[in-house]
Amino acid sequence: MVDILHRVGVLSSPDEVYTALTTVEGLAGWWTEDTQGDSAVGGILQFRFLPGGFDMTVVESVPAKRVVWEVSDGPEEWVGTTVTWDLKQEDDYTIVLFAHEGWREPVEFMNHCSTKWALFLMSLKALVETGKGAPSPDDVQISNWH
Amino acid sequence: MVDILHRVGVLSSPDEVYTALTTVEGLAGWWTEDTQGDSAVGGILQFRFLPGGFDMTVVESVPAKRVVWEVSDGPEEWVGTTVTWDLKQEDDYTIVLFAHEGWREPVEFMNHCSTKWALFLMSLKALVETGKGAPSPDDVQISNWH
Repeated sequence: MVDILHRVGVLSSPDEVYTALTTVEGLAGWWTEDTQGDSAVGGILQFRFLPGGFDMTVVESVPAKRVVWEVSDGPEEWVGTTVTWDLKQEDDYTIVLFAHEGWREPVEFMNHCSTKWALFLMSLKALVETGKGAPSPDDVQISNWH
Repeated sequence: MVDILHRVGVLSSPDEVYTALTTVEGLAGWWTEDTQGDSAVGGILQFRFLPGGFDMTVVESVPAKRVVWEVSDGPEEWVGTTVTWDLKQEDDYTIVLFAHEGWREPVEFMNHCSTKWALFLMSLKALVETGKGAPSPDDVQISNWH
């Protein structure tokens, strides 16, 4: 089992970051404009990109603290993995500790997703700090795999 | 043992990417301006940042294919880990498969380094594609840890 791990600091309150992670409008502002679904615990969020997408079941949501998604549909490598967002305050920052855990193998697609997640975290940071993220389809292209 | 994995595609030849990874001038163009040392196999490269730095022993260097560093000095969590750069051509891109392997524990500093590596890979990509990267001290700040 191998994991993707990231950490960014957002110059804002944990409440604001939590809102960007738990509302369809917030999620559409930094990950993909084509976001739909129910962001409450037990709900399913549907994220769509040009080549396909992900359905996430919201399994945990603790205001200003923690959000956990389980991938219920999407690329084979993603199904059954979990995405965890832990928030805490440090100095003037809300620190986001990100983990996409439970990959069965360190396939090349995992390398790609790790780099993409880093850039989407920077998009989340920009959204909360400035009001403008870089969600799909205007996300930063990193390679031939987009 | 936990690893950091990334993948970017650089619109250039593997030779050009290899040069950016194996010359002091190239390395100074995307990672840190304060780069010195010997980039031949067996040599030690000294990378310095504002809070400190890393000494890397070059353990493998195969033109246009692969570069491997072993961390011989730096933060405790880094010493003994290895950094591997695998290059291959795909479409118009040189694909860079990056791995920073051998972390003893998934400490919070590893999350930070994973996100920073992603942004330094984008800096490498920018350097080779446009002639201008974003090396330290002008690297992208991601949090209170810089």
